[in-house]
Amino acid sequence: MLSREDNELLTRTGPDAPMGQLLRRYWIPALISDELPRPDCTPVKVKLLGEELLAFRNTNGDVGLVDEFCPHRKVSLYFGRNEECGIRCVYHGWKFDVSGQCVDMPSEPPESSFKEKVKIKSYPCRERGGVVWTYMGPPELMPELPELEWALVPDSHRYTSRRIQECNYFQAIEGGLDSSHISFLHRNAGGQGFMGTKAFDKSQAPSYLTQDTAPKFEIEKVDYGMMVGAKRNADPGNLYWRITQFVMPFYTMIPPFEHSPRGAHAWVPMDDEHVYTWNINWNPLRALTDEERDILKQGRGIHMELIPGTLRTVQNKDNDYLIDREAQASGKSFTGIKGIGAQDSAVQETQGAIADRSVERLGTSDAAIIAARRIMLNAVKNLQQGIAPPAIDAKSHNVRSASLILPEGVAFQIGAKEKLVTQPGDFIDVESTEQSDVV
Amino acid sequence: MLSREDNELLTRTGPDAPMGQLLRRYWIPALISDELPRPDCTPVKVKLLGEELLAFRNTNGDVGLVDEFCPHRKVSLYFGRNEECGIRCVYHGWKFDVSGQCVDMPSEPPESSFKEKVKIKSYPCRERGGVVWTYMGPPELMPELPELEWALVPDSHRYTSRRIQECNYFQAIEGGLDSSHISFLHRNAGGQGFMGTKAFDKSQAPSYLTQDTAPKFEIEKVDYGMMVGAKRNADPGNLYWRITQFVMPFYTMIPPFEHSPRGAHAWVPMDDEHVYTWNINWNPLRALTDEERDILKQGRGIHMELIPGTLRTVQNKDNDYLIDREAQASGKSFTGIKGIGAQDSAVQETQGAIADRSVERLGTSDAAIIAARRIMLNAVKNLQQGIAPPAIDAKSHNVRSASLILPEGVAFQIGAKEKLVTQPGDFIDVESTEQSDVV
Amino acid sequence: MLSREDNELLTRTGPDAPMGQLLRRYWIPALISDELPRPDCTPVKVKLLGEELLAFRNTNGDVGLVDEFCPHRKVSLYFGRNEECGIRCVYHGWKFDVSGQCVDMPSEPPESSFKEKVKIKSYPCRERGGVVWTYMGPPELMPELPELEWALVPDSHRYTSRRIQECNYFQAIEGGLDSSHISFLHRNAGGQGFMGTKAFDKSQAPSYLTQDTAPKFEIEKVDYGMMVGAKRNADPGNLYWRITQFVMPFYTMIPPFEHSPRGAHAWVPMDDEHVYTWNINWNPLRALTDEERDILKQGRGIHMELIPGTLRTVQNKDNDYLIDREAQASGKSFTGIKGIGAQDSAVQETQGAIADRSVERLGTSDAAIIAARRIMLNAVKNLQQGIAPPAIDAKSHNVRSASLILPEGVAFQIGAKEKLVTQPGDFIDVESTEQSDVV
Repeated sequence: MLSREDNELLTRTGPDAPMGQLLRRYWIPALISDELPRPDCTPVKVKLLGEELLAFRNTNGDVGLVDEFCPHRKVSLYFGRNEECGIRCVYHGWKFDVSGQCVDMPSEPPESSFKEKVKIKSYPCRERGGVVWTYMGPPELMPELPELEWALVPDSHRYTSRRIQECNYFQAIEGGLDSSHISFLHRNAGGQGFMGTKAFDKSQAPSYLTQDTAPKFEIEKVDYGMMVGAKRNADPGNLYWRITQFVMPFYTMIPPFEHSPRGAHAWVPMDDEHVYTWNINWNPLRALTDEERDILKQGRGIHMELIPGTLRTVQNKDNDYLIDREAQASGKSFTGIKGIGAQDSAVQETQGAIADRSVERLGTSDAAIIAARRIMLNAVKNLQQGIAPPAIDAKSHNVRSASLILPEGVAFQIGAKEKLVTQPGDFIDVESTEQSDVV
Repeated sequence: MLSREDNELLTRTGPDAPMGQLLRRYWIPALISDELPRPDCTPVKVKLLGEELLAFRNTNGDVGLVDEFCPHRKVSLYFGRNEECGIRCVYHGWKFDVSGQCVDMPSEPPESSFKEKVKIKSYPCRERGGVVWTYMGPPELMPELPELEWALVPDSHRYTSRRIQECNYFQAIEGGLDSSHISFLHRNAGGQGFMGTKAFDKSQAPSYLTQDTAPKFEIEKVDYGMMVGAKRNADPGNLYWRITQFVMPFYTMIPPFEHSPRGAHAWVPMDDEHVYTWNINWNPLRALTDEERDILKQGRGIHMELIPGTLRTVQNKDNDYLIDREAQASGKSFTGIKGIGAQDSAVQETQGAIADRSVERLGTSDAAIIAARRIMLNAVKNLQQGIAPPAIDAKSHNVRSASLILPEGVAFQIGAKEKLVTQPGDFIDVESTEQSDVV
Repeated sequence: MLSREDNELLTRTGPDAPMGQLLRRYWIPALISDELPRPDCTPVKVKLLGEELLAFRNTNGDVGLVDEFCPHRKVSLYFGRNEECGIRCVYHGWKFDVSGQCVDMPSEPPESSFKEKVKIKSYPCRERGGVVWTYMGPPELMPELPELEWALVPDSHRYTSRRIQECNYFQAIEGGLDSSHISFLHRNAGGQGFMGTKAFDKSQAPSYLTQDTAPKFEIEKVDYGMMVGAKRNADPGNLYWRITQFVMPFYTMIPPFEHSPRGAHAWVPMDDEHVYTWNINWNPLRALTDEERDILKQGRGIHMELIPGTLRTVQNKDNDYLIDREAQASGKSFTGIKGIGAQDSAVQETQGAIADRSVERLGTSDAAIIAARRIMLNAVKNLQQGIAPPAIDAKSHNVRSASLILPEGVAFQIGAKEKLVTQPGDFIDVESTEQSDVV
C-alpha cells in the first residue's frame, strides 16, 4: 500500500512531475530503428512522458526527435515532407533539421534573418541494438548509453517489438518483477510456451512453479536497482531459483527457461495512462534462426499481434483479450486468454488506468514490488534533494537474469554469481549451442 | 418542474447519495437467473447504483455478487476462474466464495493466516421468479423479498428480458407511469401491437386512446407508492380507465390490453446515466405458449433485440433507433421507429443523460409523474430524518394494473377493486383462458 | 501571437460570450435550401454558435429553425412528425409552428389555454441564393440579408456544399485569408486544380506562386472588414497580385485562377470546437455546365466527399486524410493529401480544437491573419462599449476578389479598382464567356 501522495509521485511522468524529471535523466528507448527504415522515410509520431514528438530519419540517415508541431502556427509536422535533411511543414514550408533548427523559411523574404531565431524542441538520438534512444534531460547531465546486453548483441541475435498498453507504466513494471504470478497467470500458457518455444513445457521448471506456488523472496538492493531471488522447493534438499533484475528506471529481465532465448522488457511511459511495452528476445551466443524469428513476428511468447499500421494489440481490453471461456473452464488454459502478453495486459490494464495503490492488500509474495516502489520513490525524493539518480553509469545495466537449482543454504548471490553478469565475449564468440526447440 | 437541488436528489444513486441510500433498503433485481445458466459458468459483470460488481454461480448453484476487483492488486475478477465454490483471480490465484471470504491464497505460504483476514464486498443474493435479487443495504434492516406477481408465477408463465438504456433511471420510470404518451408515441405501433400480440389493434382500447388523447388523471397515494387512474371518454356514459401502479422504489405495472399477457417493468439504476430496463410479460393463469415465447424472444412488444453478447439494443441512439422516415411520413407508423421499447428509448434518452427537470413545462397530463417525484422525494427526505422507507413489506408489492370500462361517476378504486389485487390462487390454478392472438 | 485572454475572446461564440453576441448581429447561413427539399420533409439538426437547433420546412414551404427540444419534457423534436405546418413531438403530440408557437397540445383538455403560453426559441429564416439564412440576434436590430455576389446569382450559376470541420471557426478563417500557404500546401494539388478545373495548372499563376513563395502583403481596412493584397514577382517590372477580402464576420473570397469559376467560403461556428465550412463556386456570367456541376458534386476543388447521410468528410483526422506517402515522397503531390479541402483541414485541424495563439511564431507573411484578428477583436471590444458592429449594411458585402498582373508601383486599390466590386448587371446579362476548361 502507498499513500495517495506517494502513488501520485510514483506514477506522474510529465515535464513538471518529480518522477518525470527523474526519468528524463536516463536514455529512453523511443522507437525501433526499423520503424524508420530508410533515409527520408515517413516520420513516426512518438509520445514520451506526455510530450508529443515526431521522429524522422533524414537524408544522411540520422534520426531527429522533435516537437510534433511547427512553431509557426502549431500545425502537425507529421504531415510534413521529409526531404533533404529536414522535415518541412506543408502549411508554409518551414523546414527543421534534426537539431530542431529552422533551416528554411521560404514564406519570408530571402533577406529575413527570422529563421535563425526559430528552433524547436529537439532531443538527441542515438541508435544502438536496433533501437533509437533519446535523452530528454538537461544536456550537461547526459550519461552514456546503457549497456544492456540485448542492446549490445548483433542484430541477428535479437528480436524486438513494442506495443501500447492502456495503463500507467509502473503497474506494468510491477508485473515484470512479480515472480509469483507466473505460477498462476501463465500456468499452462495455452500451448504457446514461454519465449515462443516449447522449452517451458518440457523443462522441469513448470512442475516447480506449479507445485510451489508461494515462492519466498530475497531482495538485494544494488547500484542499478535491485535483484530479486524467488525460491521454490525443488527436489529434496534443493531450491529452484528464479532471479530477475529491476534495472533503473524501467527495465526488467525475465529469468530464462532452459534453452529458450533470453527475454527482457522496457516499460516506457507514453503518458500517465499509457505505456510502450518493449519486448526483447535474444540469444547471446548465436543468431536467431529464421524459424524462431518467424514465430516471434507472429506475436508469440512475450510479443503480441498488432492491428496493422498501429501499436494497438489485436487482443485488447475492448474485446476482453479474446478470452476463450471454454478453454478456461476445461483447464486447457488457466486464463482462457492466449499468450503471455495478453495475459499480462488483462491483469495490468484492469487495475485501472493508474492503479490506486492506497487500497491494496499486499502479502509476503509482493516483496519485490514493494521494494521496487521504494527504490523509485527514494530515487525521486533524493533527486528533489539534489542527489544524483542511480544507475546512470552505462556499465551498471550489463546484468543477466538467471534460473537455476541450488542446494538449500546457498545464497543466490553466491550460487548464481557467474550467471548474473554478462560474460565478456559471450555475444561476440558466436558459439554453437543446442538450438531451442521451437513450437 | 423541480429545483436543481431536488433533481439531484432524485437522480443520484451512488453509495453516498441520499437516494442511493434509500434504494439500498430494497431488494434489487440484479440479473436474470438464466444469465448464469450452470454451476461454475462464466461470471457476469453487473453495475448497480454505481458499484462495479461481479455475479457468479458457484459449484453448488448459489449465486455470489461481489466486488468486481480482487482486493490484492485490484485486478478484475471478471477474468477469474469460477471453480469449486469460488471465483479465483488469475493473477495470483486468490479465491473468494459467495460471501466474499478469501478461501484460498496459494501465493502465500501455507502457514499464513492472511487469507482469513481478507474478505471482499459481497451482497446477499436470492433467486425467485427467474431473477437473481440482491440486497445492498444494512444487513440488520434486510426485508423479505418483494411479492410481485410476476416473480411468483411459475417460470413457464413468464418471459423476462433486460437491456441497458442510456439515461437516468427516473426518466425511464416517468415514461412507465405516463399514460398520456401512449395516445401518441405508441399509436399505430408499427403493426407490432402491445405485448407482442394483436390484441391491442383488435380491442376497442386503441380507438379510445386515439379519440381521447387528453386523459384525466386520478392519483391515489398508497402504502407501496401510488395508483394512477387515467380515464378517457368511452361510449356515452362510460369511461375507459387505465390503472397503473408505481411500486416503490422502481416498479411500474402496464395496464393490460384485453387478452394479452400482463406486462411490467423494473427500472434499476446501473449508474446515474444508465438504467437496466427490465421487461416482464406473464400470464397468471397459464403457461406462455411456445409461439408467444418465441415472439417475445425476438424483441417484440416491450422487449428489444440486443446486440449479441451485450445488453445494448440494436436500435439505439447512435443510429437514430433505425427510424424509417417514409413510414413516419406516410402515417404507416406514428414515429417511424419500430417497437414500443425503441420508441420509449428514443424519447427518454434524448431528454439527456440526466433530464434537467428545472426547465420543463408540465401540464395536467403530467399529474402522475409529478406525484411519483413527490413520493420519491418525500421518502428520501424522510429517510434522512430517520423515517423508515415505504413499501418494505413484501406483501405490499402484490398488486395488479387494470384496464376496464366503468360508468361515469364510479370511482376506479371501487369499480376496479377486485382487479387491482392478485387473486389468491390465480397463478396456481392454471385455469384455461382464451389464448391471446399472437401476431 | 495573442494573449490567452484575447484568444478566448476571439474563439468563444456561445450565447454569453462577447464574440457570440457579435456574431449574433449578422445573418448566418444555417443550411443549404436543398437539405430541406420538400414541404413536410425530414427535419435537419443544426448546431449554431453552440445552440442545438432543428430546421424544418413546413407545409407551405417556409423554413423554421427552432430549439431542438420540446419544452414540455425536453425530448428531441428531431424525431418529430413534420405535418400540417408544424413539427409535432412524438412523445405527447405537442406541435410547434415555424415561429416556435405551440399550436396543438392534444394531451391537455380542449378547453385548456396552456398551449397559448408555450412558445419555444425560434430564429427567423429567409432563403436566398440556395441558402437558408437565420438571424439569432435582438429582433429590433435585424439587418437586411447580406448582398454577397454568390447569393445573388441565379441558382443555375452556383454550386454550394458544406461540411463539418473539427476545429474552431477562426483558425479556418485564417486559412482562408492566408495567401502565403497556397505556394506550399496547395502546390501541385494532386492534379485536381483549383476550383475543380485545369485552369490553375495551365495558367501562369502557378509559376509565380512557386517562384516567389514569400509574397508581400498590403492590407487595407475597409468598412466591411479588410482587403488583402498579396504581391509576388511576375515578369520584370510587373507584380502578380492576389487580392482577397475578409468580409465580416466570417466570409472569405478566393482570388480566381483565370477562367475558373469564382470561389468563396463562409466559416460558421457550430460550436467552439467545430465549424461548418461552406464552399461556394459560381460563375457570375453564365450557368455552370452539367460537367462542371458533376465534378464539384464529386467533392473536387474546394469541395469534399462526405460520408453519406452526414456532414463528415471521407478524408478526416482519424484516417490521416488518407495521405498517400508515396505520392508525397515522389513529389507527385506536395502533401500526399488529395484535394484542396482536405489539405486545408489537415493543417487547420491539427492546430488543435482551438488553436493556442499564445505560443505562435508569426512572420511578415502572417500580416493578413494578424490584421483579421485585430479587426474581429476591435469589433467585439467596441460592441462591449456599445459601438455598433461593422458590415451590417447589406451592400457592404457586394465585393469581389481578384488576381491580376500590375506594373510595379501601381497600388492594387487603383489598378484593380473595377475588378473588386460586382459589376451591375453582371449576373443578370448572361453574357457568353470562354468556358473554363474542366478537368
